[in-house]
Amino acid sequence: MDLKQYLAARATEVDAALDAFLPKAKEKPATIHGAMRYAVFAGGKRLRPILCLAAAEACGGDPEDALAPACAVEVLHTYSLVHDDLPCMDDDDLRRGRPTCHKVYGEGMAVLTGDALLTEAFLMVAQTRPAKRYPAAAYVAELALAGSSTKLIGGQVMDLEGEGKKLTKAQLVKIHEAKTAALLTTSIRLGAMTANATEKQLEGLTVFGRALGLAFQVIDDILDVTQSTEVLGKTAGKDAAVEKATYPSILGLEKSRKEAAKLTQEAMDALVPFKNKAQRLREIAEYLLKREY
Amino acid sequence: MDLKQYLAARATEVDAALDAFLPKAKEKPATIHGAMRYAVFAGGKRLRPILCLAAAEACGGDPEDALAPACAVEVLHTYSLVHDDLPCMDDDDLRRGRPTCHKVYGEGMAVLTGDALLTEAFLMVAQTRPAKRYPAAAYVAELALAGSSTKLIGGQVMDLEGEGKKLTKAQLVKIHEAKTAALLTTSIRLGAMTANATEKQLEGLTVFGRALGLAFQVIDDILDVTQSTEVLGKTAGKDAAVEKATYPSILGLEKSRKEAAKLTQEAMDALVPFKNKAQRLREIAEYLLKREY
Repeated sequence: MDLKQYLAARATEVDAALDAFLPKAKEKPATIHGAMRYAVFAGGKRLRPILCLAAAEACGGDPEDALAPACAVEVLHTYSLVHDDLPCMDDDDLRRGRPTCHKVYGEGMAVLTGDALLTEAFLMVAQTRPAKRYPAAAYVAELALAGSSTKLIGGQVMDLEGEGKKLTKAQLVKIHEAKTAALLTTSIRLGAMTANATEKQLEGLTVFGRALGLAFQVIDDILDVTQSTEVLGKTAGKDAAVEKATYPSILGLEKSRKEAAKLTQEAMDALVPFKNKAQRLREIAEYLLKREY
Repeated sequence: MDLKQYLAARATEVDAALDAFLPKAKEKPATIHGAMRYAVFAGGKRLRPILCLAAAEACGGDPEDALAPACAVEVLHTYSLVHDDLPCMDDDDLRRGRPTCHKVYGEGMAVLTGDALLTEAFLMVAQTRPAKRYPAAAYVAELALAGSSTKLIGGQVMDLEGEGKKLTKAQLVKIHEAKTAALLTTSIRLGAMTANATEKQLEGLTVFGRALGLAFQVIDDILDVTQSTEVLGKTAGKDAAVEKATYPSILGLEKSRKEAAKLTQEAMDALVPFKNKAQRLREIAEYLLKREY
C-alpha cells in the first residue's frame, strides 16, 4: 500500500469510528447533533488520528486499540476550530471550503457545539483500553493537558493577544508549540501509550511530535501567503489582514521554508530508533512538508 | 455541627482544593488564568461539590476521597455559567452580584475561559482514586455524560429553542432534567462511587438527585419572579423578559410551590434506606427548599 492509499484507508476507518462514537443526527435535541456532525464530517484530512494510529504501529501495537483516543483528538481538534472561527475570536466564514459552524447554525449554537464536541472527546478517550504501563486515567490526563489553558487554549490566548504586535521568533515558536504542536504530540503519544510504549519510545515520539507540529505550522503560515482561498478551503491572506505574526512575516519566505525543512529533519532523526516500524510516520512527515494545501 | 457550620466548613474545604487544582493566576498566559479564577471564586454556594462529599458520607466513605470529583463538577458547572451568560446565549451582565466574565474579559476570552474550565474539570476528575466497583474511566464517563449534548448542553439547546414558545409542563420537566438535574445527580453519584456504593445505593441516590435537581429548578424559577436583582445577585425577572417558559408561567406560583414540596418529599423518600448516614443530604435538601435566594 502506498502512502496515499494508506492515508485514505486510515481516514475511512477513523470516519467509521467517529460515526459510531458520535450521537446520531436524529437524536434529540437534533439541532446540536446535526451541528456536531456538520463540524466533524467536513472533509478534514484526519491527520491527528492517523498519526495516533501510526504511532501505535511504530511501537508494535494494534492500531485498532488506538481508535478511541484517535477519535478523541480529532473531535477535540474540531471543537477548537469551531470556537476559533467565532466572530468574537478569529471571525472566519469559511472552513474546509464550507461555511463555518456559526454561519450555518448561529453563534449561540456554535458555542454549544464546540462545548459538546469537547465533552464528547473525553467520553471517547475514557473508552481507551488501559495498557500495562498506562492506566485509563493517563489517557484522559494526557488529552486534558494538551487541550488546557497552558497548551491549546493558551496558544489561542497568546495568538489573540499578539495580534497587531511585533513578536520575536521565540515568542512565535511558543505560540505554535502550545497551539499546534501540543495536540499533534499528544495524538502520537496516545497511540504509543495504547501500544504500551516504553518511556524511551514515548520520549522519542515526543521530540518527533514537537518538531513535526512546528514544521506543520510553519508550512501553514507559508501557504496562507502563497495559496488562494480556493485551494486552501479557508480564507487566504487572513494572517496579514489581522497583522498576525507568522514565520514568513518574521523570517521571510525563503528562511521559513528552510526552517520547515530543518524541523522535519529533526522529526526524522527522532524516528531512527524505531527503524522500519516508523516507516508510516516518516512518510507522513515527508508528505506534510511537501503539501501545497 | 449545625447545617450552616457544616456547609461553611465544606465550602472552605472545596475552595482550598479548587485553589490547589487550578493553575495559579500568575501562570502564563496570565489573562486566562485570572479569568478562570474570577469565574470560579465568585462566591458560589458550592452546592454540587458539597452534595458530592455528603453522598460519599452517606455511603460510608471518606469525603476526602471525593474532593477531586467534587471540584470537577463545580468547575464544569462554572464553565456552563460563563458560556450561558455570553451575549450570543442568555446575554447576562450580572452573576453572583458581579459583572459576568465576558463583561470583564471580553467575549473571546470568556469563550476560552469556559473551554479551559471544562477541560480542567476532566483533568480533575481523572485524579479520582478508583474504588473497587468503579475504575477510573467510570468517573470520567459519568461526568462527560452529565455535561453532554443530551444532558447539560442539550438542556441549554432546548432552553434557547423554547424561548418565546408555549411549552407544556412535560417539555419543561425535560429541559430541567437535562439542564439542572443531570449534573446535580452526577455530583451525588460521583461521591457515592468514590465510597464504592452498591448498585442499589447508586440507584437510590439517582432518584434523590433527580427529584432534588427538579425541586431546585422550580424554586429558582419562583425566585426569579418573587425576588429582586439585589437579593438574587443576578438579573431578576429575566425569564419573563425573554418569554422563557417557567414553572410559575405554566402552573402559577402556588402550584409551583406545591410541586417543589412534592419533589422534595420524593427526594427524602429515596434517602430512607440510608438511615442516619444520609442526615446531611436530608438537611441540604430541606435547606434548598426553604431558601429565599
